[in-house]
Order: sequence, then C-alpha cells, then structure tokens
Amino acid sequence: MAIEEQNKRPLKLFALSSNRPLAEKIAASAGVELSQASVKHFSDGEIAITITESIRGAEVYIIQSVSDPVNTNLMELLIMVDAARRASAHAITVVIPYYGYSRADRKARSREPITAKLIASLLEDDGVTRVVTLDLHAAQLQGFFDIPMDHLEAAPLLAGYFIDHNLADNLVVVSPDHAGVSRARRMAELLKTPIAIIDNRTPDESTTSGDAVIGSVKGMNAILVDDIIDTAERISISAQTLKNAGANDIYAAATHPVFSQNAVKHMVDSPLKKVIVTDSIQIPEEKQFDKIELISVGDLMGRAIRRIYSKRSVGKLFRKEEQENIEK
Amino acid sequence: MAIEEQNKRPLKLFALSSNRPLAEKIAASAGVELSQASVKHFSDGEIAITITESIRGAEVYIIQSVSDPVNTNLMELLIMVDAARRASAHAITVVIPYYGYSRADRKARSREPITAKLIASLLEDDGVTRVVTLDLHAAQLQGFFDIPMDHLEAAPLLAGYFIDHNLADNLVVVSPDHAGVSRARRMAELLKTPIAIIDNRTPDESTTSGDAVIGSVKGMNAILVDDIIDTAERISISAQTLKNAGANDIYAAATHPVFSQNAVKHMVDSPLKKVIVTDSIQIPEEKQFDKIELISVGDLMGRAIRRIYSKRSVGKLFRKEEQENIEK
Amino acid sequence: MAIEEQNKRPLKLFALSSNRPLAEKIAASAGVELSQASVKHFSDGEIAITITESIRGAEVYIIQSVSDPVNTNLMELLIMVDAARRASAHAITVVIPYYGYSRADRKARSREPITAKLIASLLEDDGVTRVVTLDLHAAQLQGFFDIPMDHLEAAPLLAGYFIDHNLADNLVVVSPDHAGVSRARRMAELLKTPIAIIDNRTPDESTTSGDAVIGSVKGMNAILVDDIIDTAERISISAQTLKNAGANDIYAAATHPVFSQNAVKHMVDSPLKKVIVTDSIQIPEEKQFDKIELISVGDLMGRAIRRIYSKRSVGKLFRKEEQENIEK
Amino acid sequence: MAIEEQNKRPLKLFALSSNRPLAEKIAASAGVELSQASVKHFSDGEIAITITESIRGAEVYIIQSVSDPVNTNLMELLIMVDAARRASAHAITVVIPYYGYSRADRKARSREPITAKLIASLLEDDGVTRVVTLDLHAAQLQGFFDIPMDHLEAAPLLAGYFIDHNLADNLVVVSPDHAGVSRARRMAELLKTPIAIIDNRTPDESTTSGDAVIGSVKGMNAILVDDIIDTAERISISAQTLKNAGANDIYAAATHPVFSQNAVKHMVDSPLKKVIVTDSIQIPEEKQFDKIELISVGDLMGRAIRRIYSKRSVGKLFRKEEQENIEK
Amino acid sequence: MAIEEQNKRPLKLFALSSNRPLAEKIAASAGVELSQASVKHFSDGEIAITITESIRGAEVYIIQSVSDPVNTNLMELLIMVDAARRASAHAITVVIPYYGYSRADRKARSREPITAKLIASLLEDDGVTRVVTLDLHAAQLQGFFDIPMDHLEAAPLLAGYFIDHNLADNLVVVSPDHAGVSRARRMAELLKTPIAIIDNRTPDESTTSGDAVIGSVKGMNAILVDDIIDTAERISISAQTLKNAGANDIYAAATHPVFSQNAVKHMVDSPLKKVIVTDSIQIPEEKQFDKIELISVGDLMGRAIRRIYSKRSVGKLFRKEEQENIEK
Amino acid sequence: MAIEEQNKRPLKLFALSSNRPLAEKIAASAGVELSQASVKHFSDGEIAITITESIRGAEVYIIQSVSDPVNTNLMELLIMVDAARRASAHAITVVIPYYGYSRADRKARSREPITAKLIASLLEDDGVTRVVTLDLHAAQLQGFFDIPMDHLEAAPLLAGYFIDHNLADNLVVVSPDHAGVSRARRMAELLKTPIAIIDNRTPDESTTSGDAVIGSVKGMNAILVDDIIDTAERISISAQTLKNAGANDIYAAATHPVFSQNAVKHMVDSPLKKVIVTDSIQIPEEKQFDKIELISVGDLMGRAIRRIYSKRSVGKLFRKEEQENIEK
Repeated sequence: MAIEEQNKRPLKLFALSSNRPLAEKIAASAGVELSQASVKHFSDGEIAITITESIRGAEVYIIQSVSDPVNTNLMELLIMVDAARRASAHAITVVIPYYGYSRADRKARSREPITAKLIASLLEDDGVTRVVTLDLHAAQLQGFFDIPMDHLEAAPLLAGYFIDHNLADNLVVVSPDHAGVSRARRMAELLKTPIAIIDNRTPDESTTSGDAVIGSVKGMNAILVDDIIDTAERISISAQTLKNAGANDIYAAATHPVFSQNAVKHMVDSPLKKVIVTDSIQIPEEKQFDKIELISVGDLMGRAIRRIYSKRSVGKLFRKEEQENIEK
Repeated sequence: MAIEEQNKRPLKLFALSSNRPLAEKIAASAGVELSQASVKHFSDGEIAITITESIRGAEVYIIQSVSDPVNTNLMELLIMVDAARRASAHAITVVIPYYGYSRADRKARSREPITAKLIASLLEDDGVTRVVTLDLHAAQLQGFFDIPMDHLEAAPLLAGYFIDHNLADNLVVVSPDHAGVSRARRMAELLKTPIAIIDNRTPDESTTSGDAVIGSVKGMNAILVDDIIDTAERISISAQTLKNAGANDIYAAATHPVFSQNAVKHMVDSPLKKVIVTDSIQIPEEKQFDKIELISVGDLMGRAIRRIYSKRSVGKLFRKEEQENIEK
Repeated sequence: MAIEEQNKRPLKLFALSSNRPLAEKIAASAGVELSQASVKHFSDGEIAITITESIRGAEVYIIQSVSDPVNTNLMELLIMVDAARRASAHAITVVIPYYGYSRADRKARSREPITAKLIASLLEDDGVTRVVTLDLHAAQLQGFFDIPMDHLEAAPLLAGYFIDHNLADNLVVVSPDHAGVSRARRMAELLKTPIAIIDNRTPDESTTSGDAVIGSVKGMNAILVDDIIDTAERISISAQTLKNAGANDIYAAATHPVFSQNAVKHMVDSPLKKVIVTDSIQIPEEKQFDKIELISVGDLMGRAIRRIYSKRSVGKLFRKEEQENIEK
Repeated sequence: MAIEEQNKRPLKLFALSSNRPLAEKIAASAGVELSQASVKHFSDGEIAITITESIRGAEVYIIQSVSDPVNTNLMELLIMVDAARRASAHAITVVIPYYGYSRADRKARSREPITAKLIASLLEDDGVTRVVTLDLHAAQLQGFFDIPMDHLEAAPLLAGYFIDHNLADNLVVVSPDHAGVSRARRMAELLKTPIAIIDNRTPDESTTSGDAVIGSVKGMNAILVDDIIDTAERISISAQTLKNAGANDIYAAATHPVFSQNAVKHMVDSPLKKVIVTDSIQIPEEKQFDKIELISVGDLMGRAIRRIYSKRSVGKLFRKEEQENIEK
Repeated sequence: MAIEEQNKRPLKLFALSSNRPLAEKIAASAGVELSQASVKHFSDGEIAITITESIRGAEVYIIQSVSDPVNTNLMELLIMVDAARRASAHAITVVIPYYGYSRADRKARSREPITAKLIASLLEDDGVTRVVTLDLHAAQLQGFFDIPMDHLEAAPLLAGYFIDHNLADNLVVVSPDHAGVSRARRMAELLKTPIAIIDNRTPDESTTSGDAVIGSVKGMNAILVDDIIDTAERISISAQTLKNAGANDIYAAATHPVFSQNAVKHMVDSPLKKVIVTDSIQIPEEKQFDKIELISVGDLMGRAIRRIYSKRSVGKLFRKEEQENIEK
Repeated sequence: MAIEEQNKRPLKLFALSSNRPLAEKIAASAGVELSQASVKHFSDGEIAITITESIRGAEVYIIQSVSDPVNTNLMELLIMVDAARRASAHAITVVIPYYGYSRADRKARSREPITAKLIASLLEDDGVTRVVTLDLHAAQLQGFFDIPMDHLEAAPLLAGYFIDHNLADNLVVVSPDHAGVSRARRMAELLKTPIAIIDNRTPDESTTSGDAVIGSVKGMNAILVDDIIDTAERISISAQTLKNAGANDIYAAATHPVFSQNAVKHMVDSPLKKVIVTDSIQIPEEKQFDKIELISVGDLMGRAIRRIYSKRSVGKLFRKEEQENIEK
C-alpha cells in the first residue's frame, strides 16, 4: 500500500546538507522519494534555499543533523523551516538524528548559556511543529520543547550488535563516567549484564591517574557505553583503565560518532577492539578506520516518520522486539 | 548598612503558607521584615489573596515551597504572582526552596506529561521575572526556564555537618541508585571520599533482593546521598544493603525531606544512624523523630536574596568556603 | 450512524477525577466510550497521568469540573493537557461544567488577583484549543479567552423543571442580590413571570436585618435564581425574607451546587421547598438531602461535543425548544 | 516640590486628538506640560505621527478617549504607542477616559466578536505597559488585560454633585435596566438612598409600553444612573416611566456622554431636570444644552498619573473622602 | 467540477464594506457565493459584526481593502477576524487588495512609527493565518509577516493593456521618482522597453522646478509607472516634465487608485492621455473621469483563492503568460 | 565626566569574534573598557561562552558583525545573548555593524525564506532589547523588529572623504543598478551632485553587454555608491561601463566590504581609482589592497552607545554637521 493513501495530505521529505546518505536510507524506509530543494552556500558564507516543488498543505519533514559544521547546519535548518512555513506547509517536523549542543544543557558555572535550550527555542519560534530525534544527551531535553517530540533510542540496535555476534556472554557494561550510569544501566538491562563505572576523580584533567573502576570487570569482556564519542579521550582512557583492571575484550558503543580532533588516533591507539556507532552523523572518509562497526538508524527513523504520518503510535518503536515485529 | 540603601526600589518579601518558619529565617538573613498579604482558603477550596501594602515599583520576592499539599501551594504561588503583577510590582522573584514535581522532568513512557516543565511555563507566563531555587532534581531543569534562575546548592551545608562533627574519616559516599551518581560524586568531592553505588536491578519492585553494592563499603562509614527523601523506601533498603555489605555507621543526607506515607517508620526501623536534611520543606510535628538533624537553608537563601537585590553576583554563594567568608 | 463516520479524526473523550458520573452521561449522549488514562495521586500529593491509548492526530475532549478540591482538580486538568499536547493530539477541548474561581473575575479591591483570568491564561498557554463550559458567573469571562468557547446555558433546563411540574403559574422570579438581576430576568423570560430583587443593604454582614424586597412577591410562589449555591447563606436568608414578605412556596434554582461548609444545614433549615440544581458538580453522598431536585446537564454537554466534533453549530443548543427538537 | 524630583526618569504626557481640553486639565493637575507630537491626518485618511521631542528612557503617558470617531481615535492611539515603543520609551501608559467598544464585552449571540477584548489585546501586543481608565462598562474588563490597570471611578464625583447642591434628601437611585443594578446600588450607597429598577420587558423595542418600575419612587426625587448615555433613548423613556409612576424631580447621572444620533433631542424633550455627566468625552458645541451639568475628571486622572509616576498607591483615590484629603 | 469537491472543509468567502464590486468579481472567479455577515455601523461610530451562518471548521476568506476610510476599514477587518476566530473558523485568510499605510514602512525620521508593520502585527495577533495582497509599496513588507503571504502582482495586467491596445512600440517606461525605479524596471521588462527616471531634486516641495529627466524620452510615448496614485501631484508634475522633455503620448499606470484630495483635477488638467488603474480600491462615482481605464484584479484574486483553497501553487499566477494559460 | 556617572546601572560592552579592532575603537569612543567573556570554539564546531564578570543589573552591549563566517558569528551572538539574559542583564543591546543576510529581505521567488526577518525574530525571541546597526540593505528592515532600533548611517562619513580630499567638484553619483537609486540620491544630496544609473537589462547574467548608463557621466568624475561590495562583479562592470561612457576618475563608495570570492581581483583589475569603505567588517590581511580607503565607523557607533546609555537622542547623530558638533 502506498504511504500516501493513509493520509490525504502529501508527505514531503527533505534532506539538508549534513547527512545525505542517512536521509536516503530514511526515505527508503519511509517509502517516499526525497523532495527537491536548492541549498546554495554563497561565497560570503550566506545560505540561500529555494524549495523547488509546491508544499502547500503538505506535511513536511526536514532531516538535518546538527553536526560539524554545527552552526552552518543549524542555520540551514532554521532557514529551511522559515521557507517551509512561508510556503504554506501544513506541519513542519524536523528530524534531527544528532542534536548538537546537547551537552550545553544546564549552567555548570555562573554566566553560561544553556545552548541546548536556545536551539529548542529557536526551532519552536521558527514554526516547527514537531521534533524527531535520537538519544539526547539527557532525557530532560525533551522538556526544552513544548511541541511534541518523538525521542528515538538506538540502545536496542547497539545491543543487537552484541546479541547478533554472540558476544553477550561474560559481559559487563561500563559507564566511562559517573554522569552516564543510567545509560549504562539501560544497556545492561538489554544485555542482562552487570555494570561497572569508571570513576574519574579529577575530571578536569585528561590524565588517567585519577581513574578507578567501581565494580568488577576482571576476566570479563567490557562494553563502554556512551551517547557521544567526541574527542574520544575519555573513552580511550577508560579502555586503558579497564585493560589495566583485567578486562578481556573491550568494546565502545555509542550513538553519535562526533569524532573531532584526534579522536580517530586515540581510538586506534587504544585497547578498544571495536567501536560500534550509528550513522546519526556522517563519518567522512578520512575518519573511517577498521575498528568501526556502523549500525544504521535509517530504518528506525524512516519507520518513525511513517508512523507519525499515519498517526500511529511511535512508542511501539522503542523496544527492540517490537522494532522487529511491527509491520512496516 | 540598611539593605534598602543599596537600591532605590523597595524590597518586598512575602511568605505564603508552605513554610513560614523558613521564610522568617530568610527574612532575618536578608535583613528585612516580611511584608503583609492576606491569604484565605475558602470553604469551597478556593484561595483568595489580597496584598495589604502597596508594592508599586517594588522588587517583590515570594517564598513558597511547592510541597504537600503540592497543588494548593502551587496555586497560591500562581495567584500571588498574578496579584503582584497587577499591583504594579517592578519585578517578581519566586523563591522556591522545594520545587515540587521536579521528578516529572521527562517522558519516561509514551503519553506522559513533563510536569516540571509545565510548572516552569505556568510561572513564566504568569509574569515571574526570576526564580531562586535549591537543588533541583536534575540540573537540566534550569533550561525549562528562559528567565534568570539562581540555583542554590545545599551540598556544602550537608557536607559541613560531617566536617563539623568530625565524621569525615573512613567515609564512603553512596548513591542509592544509578541515577544519582553525579550527586554522590559531588558530595564525595566536598568530603574527599570514594564513592559507591547501590545497583537495584529490579527497580520496579520494592524488594531488596535485586540490590547490590558496586564499590567498596566494608568497614567504612557510609553516607547515602539523595536530593529528595520521599517515601524513604529506597533509602531504607539501601541502608540495609550497606549494612549487609559490612558498612559501619550509615547516614542519609538529603536536601528535601518530603517524608510522605510511611517514610518516618521506614527510617526509624532502618539501620540509618542519622538523617541529615534541610528545612526546604517544613516537617510537621508528627513527622519529627530522633534521627533527624536539621540544617537550615534560611541563611543561604536570605543572602542570595540580598545579593540579587543589590545586583551582586550570587555565584559566589555556591562554594562552601566562600559561603563562610563573603560579607553578608 | 456512528459518530466517527462524520469526521476522519478519532474523537477521544477523557474524564478526570472530579465528576465521573456526569462524564459517563456526557459520553453516553455523545455516543462514544470514555478513553483510558491512568491518573494517580501519590502520597506526597503529586499527580501522575499517563494516557494509555494512542491519541495521535485525535480530537481530544477532557471533562473536568474545577470544583472542590479546586486546586487539585485544576492541576489534574493542566497536567492532562500537557500530556495530550505532547502526545500529538490534533486539538484539545477542555469541557469544564463548573469553572471554579469564576467569581474572582475583577479586582474588587486594590492588589487583588483576577484568578478567573489567570486560569484562562494557564489553560491557553498550556495548549488548549477550545473550551466548553456552562453558566459562567459573568458572561464577560468569555473574553478572558482568545480561543473559541462554547458557553452553554442551564436556564432552559431549570425552567423546564417548573414547566414540567406545572409550577409556572402565579410565579415571581427573584434575584437574591443586585448583581444577579440579569440572570433572574433571563429566567423570568423563559417562565414569563415578573421579577423581584432582594436588596441587601449591608452586604458585608450575614444578617437579615438589612434585607428588603424590591418588587411584589406577596401571595406568589417565588423562585430564587442564582448561578452558584456556595455556603447557601445568602439564598437561605433570602428565602426567609421572601417568606416574611408574604411569599407562598419558595424555590431555589441554581446551576452549580458547590454546597460548601454548612450549606446543607442552611437550606434544610430554611423555608425553601425545593432546591433545583444540576450535576455540573458531583454532590457527595453526605451532602444530599430531600429538597434537592437534580437536573442533569449530561445530555446537553454530550450533544454539544457531538456538534463540535461534527463541525455543526452549537448555538442551536441554546434555546430550550431547539434543544428538544434538533436531531441528536 | 516639582514632580520630576520624585523619579529619575522623565515624565512625558501626550494628548492625542480626542479630548484636548480634558488632557490640559489632567496635565495641570499632574503638574506637567503636555509634550509635543505632530499628529497629521492625510487626505487619504491615513494618520502620521512624529514625536517631536526625545522620550528615551522616559515614562510616557498618552491620553486618548476611544470616542467618536472611534476607529480613528483608536488607530491614533495604536500608532502613537508604536512610535513611542520604537523611540525607546521606558514605559507606556495609555490613559483612556472613555474606553470605546466596552459594551461589546461578551458574545451575546453566536458568531459575534468580543471587541472590548480585541482592543485590550491590540494595546497589549503593541507594547502598552499600563492602562488607566474610568468606569468600564463591566468591571470584568479589567481581566481582559494582563498588564496593570488603574480603574478609576467617577461615582464619588457624580454623587458629590447632589451632596454639594443639597439634593440628597428624599432621593431614590434608579437603574434604567436590570443590567445596571449594581451601578445604581453603588451610587445609592454613596448617597444613602434606596434603589429602584426600571424593568423593560421587551428590551428589543424602543417603546415604553413594556416598562415597569420595581420599587418605590412615588413622591421622591429620582436619579437615573448609568455609565454611558449613548442615544439617550433608554434614559429618556425611563424618565417618562418614572414621571408616570409619580416621581418628582428626575435626574440622570452618567460618566460618559456619548450623545449619539438624536440623544440631545431625546433628553431635551424628556422630563429630565438635569443631566450630570463628566468630561471623559468632549461634548461638541452643537451637542451642549441647558440641562447638562459637567463634572470634570481631569483632576482625578491627573492625580492618578502623579501617584503612578511616584509609585504611590492609586487605590487611595477610589473613595471620595480620600480624594479630598490626600495631598496632591 | 465544483470547487468544494477539492477540499473537505467548506470555503466561506466574506466581503466587508470597502469594495463590494471587486468582492463580487472575486467570488465569481473563485466559483463561490459570498457568505453572509451583518456589519452595522452604530451612530456612535462603533462597528458591530455578526456572522450569520455557521463557519465551524471552515476555511474563511475575508476581502477588505484598507482604503479610505482607512481606520474604519481596518477595524472592520480586525473585528471580523475576532468574530471568525471565536466562531471556530479552521483558518482565516485576509484578502487585502489595497494594503493601507504601506508607505509607512520605515522610520524616515526619529520617533516615527512603522505603521505598516503595526498593521501586520495587529492582524497576526488577531489570529489571521494567511494574507493575500497585491503590489505592496515595498516587497520587504512581506517580511513584516511571519504567516504565509501570497503577494500578487498587477504589472502583467497593466502591461497587458498596452499590448492589447497595440501601444507597445516606441515606448519608454518612466519612474516618477528615484524610489520607484525597480517597479519601472519590472514593467519595462514586460513591455521590452528602456526606462527613464524623473529626478526630483527638491523632493520636499511640490514644484516642478527641481525636476529633471534622467534617460531619453524625446519623441517617445511614455508610461509613468507607480504603485499608488494618491494626491496625483507627483504623477501630474512628472507628466508635465515629460511633455517638456519632448515625450509624445503620456500614460500613467498604477495599481492602486487612492485619488485623494484634488487628485482628479490634477490628472484632468495634466498632459496625461490615459490613467490605467485597477479596481483594488473602489473609485466612487464623483472621482471617475474620462481618462481612466479600469483593469479588474477580480479574476486574478479569485483564481488565487481557488488555488490556495485547493492547495495548489499560487506562484504560477505571477507571470502573465501563465495567468492566461493555466486552467482555472 | 565619566560615562558611568550618567546612569546608575553599569555599562558592560562586549566584543565577540568578528571584528575586534572595530570593537576597540567603539569602546574607546564610548569611553569604557571592553568587558571580559571567554568564547571558545571546540573541535567539534560548538561554541562555548562564559561571561567572566558579573553583569547583574547591567546594561549590556554586544558588538558583533554578522559577517563571514556568517552562521558562526550569528550563533556566537545568539549564544552570548542567552548567557547574558540568564546572567540577569537588565537590558541587552546588540550592536551589529554589518547585518548579514540583509539582502534576503523578501521572497523574490516562490518558496524562498526571508532570512533577514528570521534573524530579527531569532534575536528578539532570544531576549534582545535593542538593536544598533548601520546601513541596512533596505530601510524597511527596521520594521522586521518590534524592539527599538538605532539605524546609523555611514553616508555622511563616506561623503566626508570626498569633501575632505577636495574631490567634490564635477562629480556625478552613480547607482550601479536600479534598486540602489535612493541610496545614490542620498549621497548626491550630501555632495550636491547629479545622479546617473547603470541599467543592467539582463540582470541574471554577469556580462557587461546589457549595461547602459542612464544620465550624463561624460567628462565627469563618478562615484559608484552601494551599501555592500560582495563579489565586486557588479561594481567592477559598472566602473568599466562608466569608463566606456567617458567618465574620468571613478570611485566606489560602500559601507560594507564583504569582499568575497575574487572581489579583490575584480577591483584591482577594474578602472576604479579608489574604493572607499568602512570597517563595519574586518578586512583580513590577504584582502587588503592599495585602492582601499578605510573610514572607521568606530567613533560613530561609540558615540551612539554613549547617547543610548545616557538616554539622549541618537537622531542627532544622523547628520554629518551634527556629528561634528555635538559634544561627545
């Protein structure tokens, strides 16, 4: 059955510049073609967008990760939303596989901004009517929006890697810092393992000296779980700490491969055996390396869009078993 | 020097019904009298407020904990703000020692509200211009507001109890669940101790069977650290788990003594030696018991108001040492 | 014909805690089942709501009287609306048979709030898209909202009681105070009777001494008409005043039976023969007494919802004769 | 003491076109000069305003009655507010002696606007920060605004006329219709008289046939009290009804002399002895007649502005005795 | 095919008072009847509107030129929108053939308003969901709105006059001032002619002395192009300047015939041969004169409404050739 | 006199990354030190800002040109404003010497955004209370803001160059296209010269073939006037066209030196003798060349800030003569 038959309004799915390969997977999963828009970057740095097909009365979905170049990708998104609103879209859903600035979610010190909230406000004021996103740094970011949000979760897909590769025995899930214990706990539940924590007592310095493992890892295989791998310093140091503590095979599993600065070198040089990440952010050619195992969230997001468009529950997508069984 | 000399606008400090004793401490610390308002609860349950002195052009501060009866206390606050705004207050700061509903800060399941955000929106839409609060359940709640917030911290005061009573040796700070590890980590930093975690593997059932201690506690004195003690089930079970794991003296330290249902009985019956809490919520006569050590946040909040009124930095209040040294 | 056939969007009708029996009558009249939501009141006074069926794209109607416990019922409503909005409801209509705080509709004195407006603003800011209500204390409250409101009227139903019981002869409709004359006038029109007014010259004291009847009541049967019977002091004193002035049978007719404090005793002890009220507020067992005649507004409100859902005019429901004749 | 000494910000008082004589009285009472603005009406009907002195950081007060030509006067006000906001006024108070459209305060029939609320919203959205007005048609209009409003009352001044002229004996205050009884009641309190009501049973037709007097007027002097005299039909018919019922001298007292259509002829031809009105609306030369007694509200409004500017309570102006005694 | 078949929601097209003949042309072109509303102007200048048929869930279109009497016509529109919003219209499109105050689009001097933006804000805040308008004075006015706008263009229709009457040879298009050169350029493109400019060096005085022609006009027929002809002083002086410079036949072509003050006399007395204008503003009987050639925009606007209602692109209407060819 | 003496609130002037040299000139002219903020650009492209001194109750001014890298500079500004608002700034003025995206000020084609308005909305929603800017591409952009804007003008400074260098004789001011004629007209007024226009008949192609000069330039010195020099194609072609038409010395004068792509090469290769621009955008080392004459707007902007802070009229800065004479 064609998806358009389920809803009288046309579905228009647009991809901006940040992650075209994922957008194509999403479109394929959703069962629609990507719609056309011209996105030009002028020599003075300004962006010009023209939507090149009518979207009057349509449900518009715009896919854009707010990944590096973060500010340019964000402005592309804001400008596209402005264009869509003025072009009489009926509803505008932004699909943000990677929500940049999500770690700027509170004032850690006096006179700091809360940029993750700023971005939420910019999007809402611009006329966005719904957000679809994946593994926010903190679940509380949902409350930064007053519009409906569908917050998807990659944990079942990442856990699936270990199950599918028969790696689920003798495992311990490890949080690389005290702030990520809930995330590790969630993964441990999916894999039915214990947890451990790397306690970095001097978190402001990038040395291993302060690190200690809380919990048992000796003789076990360990999965370091995080939402974002950015410079990869913390994850690499943690891998070494685990190795020193007697862990066997050590994996890293994370949703968002930011991989900035020397991240690749850090991971290559570390005792990590594999780094399992999703395609929420496009990894450029020069940042690919052997240890990476890429899990696509394209199908997950495509099915979410399809369900949203058809006004069916998206909550059903949150559990692994249901992700497999529900009809697409 | 009289506080009013520092600012041309009058300072008007009001206390609503939830916690009059704390309000008086705050007023004393701020160096002002509490202003007068009539707050009536009619027999049909409606609340009527009349501010009985002129507040034109004044900086108004309203103290109210959103504690049990939560909804009535919240409505008192909202109605008071409406009255103050219509009465031409120049600015309206709400001082909320205990921010009720703070645990409803994300959608844990489909089709849930985010009530902590709802309350933030209700206050902002009502015309509040600033919030002063204490130990929010998650720091991200700061981002639920777009107006300025001063987020005070009781940890240095709670840590001070152990230091002042010479209890800081051979200590371990323990998080009663995986979600509170950062909070425990912060306390451990203040007391220069290691941390441990109670891992409750079946969090939906209130039995001890699933609990395990991650980290070393044997032969040590332990402080269970949390932000809120509500039914006290978790903290009591955790105390027992620590006792079973060989801990010596076991303390609980928490900012907000909600103490609902059988909380008192749970704590009385538990191996807890002392329960150190603040007066952010007024503990009624019938819920007081011997193990309680009450630390007042009145002076902390009073000094915060004084600094806000005088347009001086409040950030300086965040560290214990500075809390002692800065001139009031 | 099933109601769902008239509109492509699903209709989801929810009842919160205040008045379940009325909600069931409304649902029956509208021809739909009540949808399911879990509403829990925790021991610390906080409310947790989970909507337990998908409402994506649905037209949601939420029935809640803002009656005692007023603030808790209001918060239930606000929280439910937050949940519905985040759960992607297409439209959210709140159906408020009794709009609490409606008498706080102006500043009678300096530095008072206008709580009736506050509630309107809280609801609008929360994302409500339409209000259905019944006999507001002042018609001007309609202007407190910018969203569409359907303001239903119980007067034809109350008048119907007298017509149906052949009590419409030798009648005078009496306003118990000078502020309610228009309401009495409206009832007098429906019953084709003259009017009179109780003039309470010392309105601040609850004594009969200042009362006088303006207009003729001697030898006539009288109906005291009001919108709300709260403590019932005024209506009971007025009944006595009418009795003293020579009236025969004396009735009270009012839409909203708040019945607070000693209301029942006042009415039982008064010369009132019957008290005709609607079920806009659920009267608890202990407040029921022989003189009460209960008129249900369930069918009126159910038909209103049905017409709103079908995009047909609701204005036609405002007149008694049409209420009888228009097809359901 | 010069008024400017009481507040660091300059006070700028502007008068638009509707009622220059009143504005001058207000300015004199407030103790300031009227500031300068050029207000041009072009031949195509458009209005152009230029404020011709700097108002940066000033407290701006703009006097304008929304009287005939209602729409033009309203647009003058909205445009002036836009100019003042863009010119960096610190605060903008609109002083509206006559709030036009105030009778359009509810939906009396289906699909009507609530224009009184519309105007409130237009003013608020335009950046007005405070409203000063006089005798709104219904007190509930205060709730149409969320910004502070000072609602002045002319009743003590009108009552003063009767007291000052020794006309307060053997008086009855009469409401010309059932909707105005509260207003009559308030005047009766000030003059310590009984009240009566004209009951017009067929309010849609302008004939006297349906009118009846409820209450005693025979042999008494009567004051018909209303807020607005518009076409003067109702007041003239009511005067005749009172005359027929045996009243002696009959007066009309009203705040706002709209005097539209044949109002003057109606009043001249009626049994009214005197028509006491205020200068909230400027009465043009051709509409003046012998029976008019004009009471100025200029001093009342000027003192209100002065108190607002000085951040002193305005509530004190609400009672006649205080109006006399408080220092200007 | 009936237009209503293309969309499930009813289309309701209303005409207010400013330009009934154009509204009827628009309705005819759109293929619908004008819906009914009662618009009364009371003797005190207030406007009362009642929509006399149900519009629940309808797409409402309201046609009103903001032409003389500008303020009254604007208020009619704002009040009608308020009524439509409260009457549960699904969407409210205002169709404004002539957008009054469009020349007040920037602060030309200090402390001026930007009335064109004020009007945009008033309309948006009132709940308008879309604007359809014609030849705004500056294209930037589109940005004064955040809601979708369809900005139609009369230039192809005006150009059509010259093409249809075989007047397109030996032509020069002339801008009567330096601010209108882009407009002239656009017309020149449509007619494939060169352009010239009248340079008025002393723009503050209404004399011809400062005028000069930049570009060649000698021996050519000239079209003076403007968006608005208001007092017609500038266009008449420009015609004389062109005549002095050797132009042959001189035409004026403008979209909006404001024709205020002595406009007609100026044009009659000038060397203008023809004045080609549209019916965006209704020209009253007494302002009609022989030189006028009236081009209706009724069909253009009617087709725009039809396309909007059917969710088809309106952009296709912008080019003359397409205006002719696209199926209606 | 120290500037701080004129206003009780502290003035805090911040410079972000785009144009530090100009910011220092502005600060020097305003008579204040630049305040301190840490602005970090992380390796993943995210920006982190911490304001490192207290700004409670201060008037904050933030200087940032939205120049290349446009989106990063804009986000820096938005984030800084968020930080300042949360840090309790009393007022936040953004000082934007170059307002990027200002040419995206209308929908030139269907389904385009209006990015200049988007930016205005983003800034307003972020809590900016005032904008100071310079030579917007179209004056109508003022109306994109509802907050006060001070729109400064560089034309008197640019004209001053020609006067100061005795180049004002035998001059003609030339607009390089039809859209900029008003700008040229303004410069011609200041220099008391005639104007001419380059008419580019095929504006979509970058060839000189379609260009023609309207007006006389032969034997005269010509100044091509524009607001922005971006790729410099148009200005270079225009210079050649003027040269071909017999002009002598040819100058370009523009406010904003965007100088993107091959701009420098175009200008170097062109017949332009001098290019007079301001420092609204910082010209990097590699884009400087001999023909540039740099006029600083630092003093103009500094004096504007000073007057704003002191609540004195800024309008006086708009005319050259006054710019010289008014006391700083």
